[in-house]
Amino acid sequence: MTKTYIHGIGMTKFGSLPDFSMKDLLLKACSEALKDAGRPKIDAVFVGNFLGGSISNQEILGAIVANDLGLGYVPSTKVEGACASGGIALRQGILGILSGEYETVLVAGVEKMKHATTADVTQGINAAMDTITNEKSAGLTFPGFFGVLANRYFYETGATKEHLARVALKNRENGVNNPLAQFPKPTTLEEIMNARMITDPLGLFDCSPMTDGAAAVVISRKKSPIHILASSQVSGPTKMQDTKNLLSIPAIGESGRIAYEKAGLGPKDIDVVEIHDCFSMTEIIAIEELGFFPKLEGWKAVEEGRTKVTGDKPVNTSGGLLSRGHPIGATGIAQIYQLVRQLRGNAANQVKEPRIALAQNLGGTGSYSTVHILERV
Amino acid sequence: MTKTYIHGIGMTKFGSLPDFSMKDLLLKACSEALKDAGRPKIDAVFVGNFLGGSISNQEILGAIVANDLGLGYVPSTKVEGACASGGIALRQGILGILSGEYETVLVAGVEKMKHATTADVTQGINAAMDTITNEKSAGLTFPGFFGVLANRYFYETGATKEHLARVALKNRENGVNNPLAQFPKPTTLEEIMNARMITDPLGLFDCSPMTDGAAAVVISRKKSPIHILASSQVSGPTKMQDTKNLLSIPAIGESGRIAYEKAGLGPKDIDVVEIHDCFSMTEIIAIEELGFFPKLEGWKAVEEGRTKVTGDKPVNTSGGLLSRGHPIGATGIAQIYQLVRQLRGNAANQVKEPRIALAQNLGGTGSYSTVHILERV
Repeated sequence: MTKTYIHGIGMTKFGSLPDFSMKDLLLKACSEALKDAGRPKIDAVFVGNFLGGSISNQEILGAIVANDLGLGYVPSTKVEGACASGGIALRQGILGILSGEYETVLVAGVEKMKHATTADVTQGINAAMDTITNEKSAGLTFPGFFGVLANRYFYETGATKEHLARVALKNRENGVNNPLAQFPKPTTLEEIMNARMITDPLGLFDCSPMTDGAAAVVISRKKSPIHILASSQVSGPTKMQDTKNLLSIPAIGESGRIAYEKAGLGPKDIDVVEIHDCFSMTEIIAIEELGFFPKLEGWKAVEEGRTKVTGDKPVNTSGGLLSRGHPIGATGIAQIYQLVRQLRGNAANQVKEPRIALAQNLGGTGSYSTVHILERV
Repeated sequence: MTKTYIHGIGMTKFGSLPDFSMKDLLLKACSEALKDAGRPKIDAVFVGNFLGGSISNQEILGAIVANDLGLGYVPSTKVEGACASGGIALRQGILGILSGEYETVLVAGVEKMKHATTADVTQGINAAMDTITNEKSAGLTFPGFFGVLANRYFYETGATKEHLARVALKNRENGVNNPLAQFPKPTTLEEIMNARMITDPLGLFDCSPMTDGAAAVVISRKKSPIHILASSQVSGPTKMQDTKNLLSIPAIGESGRIAYEKAGLGPKDIDVVEIHDCFSMTEIIAIEELGFFPKLEGWKAVEEGRTKVTGDKPVNTSGGLLSRGHPIGATGIAQIYQLVRQLRGNAANQVKEPRIALAQNLGGTGSYSTVHILERV
């Protein structure tokens, strides 16, 4: 138990937001979270962000929040862990509170991507691989990495491209009901199956999009109805060639194991889940790694509809990265936003009276994973 | 008192190191610190870095350290706060230990700059300003900012360009004795005074260089002879136009005030100092802000030689940023490296039996400052 509580949440619309700068988005989400928390005194700021330096020429996001929101001389820090930057920022905020140095902390995540070319964003994202490898110089990109995993998964199991499509369809159906999600338009299994191929077998709908957006959360030692029951963060292999088993992303499993142990509960106790579905394939591996379904059987759970809002283990009720969108540094905090709304009972795609919620945020080719377990008290 | 102790230090040569990648430098400094600490079990990694994404297309430095050094699934995090990234990384390590989650933490800082063009590095460094200001769009750069401060300082005091040159000369004299420093060549006051102008009144020797390098430190809850007596981190104005008094960098003063209060001592108790002399002018402002000398009188202390190794308040015995070099993310950790060596009694430019040492690390135009006070116990 972290004895750290969530007091406020804020989130911008996710999508293509040309009228807002990265700073605009960041401050908007923070202001909303501060208001939702009743405007407490803030003792520190942590911001998760990945591409600010490379495609926006804007760092010092911590100090910008502290200054522009008039928070005074409070310590502020940007945190980077590739696509897990948001989850890692939240954990640093929790550590700051546990240290006794801070009582109440503002944690935010932001990314501005849609102003840049796809080539520049792809190049920027490739900084989440280890540069000094033959993989990167041979042209491997993230869709390529997860495409290889998907083909191997098909080979080892009975799964097909249709199972990936069912993940994408479920998340699109959820996203359509989420007014903050990037994609409001419904789709069909047929459209997903026939969409433009990105990297075999992953089509357009199997890949998370480029997104502008920000999210924020206020956490405190002071009590509130939402307790952060556990926080875990682990590092994993930085190179595909270091992965002993392509069908496992050990960082996810290990972050789950540690979080369950700290929380004193297991996968069966989790009522609602936000998972890092950067690709449809990743969601299937993650639901296995987190113990919701047996190894190599996640695809069957998808086929049976068990991860739908109406299923016994609702996953990505927000729409997930695939449909809510994936503004990289914001994603880990947007997951918390959705789960807090679930626990408060006013979420898009509300499930029935959830009490325990789990968020899992991934970075790189499994280089980072964080898990946070929230409890309604 | 943080009750956190320093067990090991490591540092690469600073300078132009074309034969080493950023990763090589980072791992070398970390390996040396781990060896110096007696190879303890590491529970977490923090890495300070600023330009990895923008000029080296390499992020995930935390996971790279964890993986390549075989540290296992330990949490690892990159921390950014412009030129204060190193000091801020150290503070996050301390908070992690104070939280009770970690016993022993590896903190490193790294930057690789010399492979990039000056234009690309200047552009990258400008990410440490708030992009949405007329200052940046009007062409203000960091030498420009500190040049304006110097001219104002001259106007308000009796100081001249020669006082800046005396800071640069002192730090060069110190650097010449430090085998890890970037500039081994002695110089003269005349050469400094006549050097190529960068931004009036700052000449080439008044400006810290582009540098490759890394430094690392192992800290732990377990006791060692070097105790971190206090750690402070503050945010300050992100824009020159928000600065009420050009001759003050309030983040430095505030970080000093908090650290002194936590340590239960004052400026007079500090035996040896490493300060963020990104420009010669910055050193003069910093020795005033930290209370070593009265406001607007730092230049007199320089004139009297009081900040020399032989003076009553030795500042930057390593050579400082101006002569040891300024690999941005590494600087805050390199300061700790020098001070630990001073407290151990085996430093370049060793002062006589120091007991209390202070490091101050600055980011942006005063957007961040950290202070760490070390004590030999």
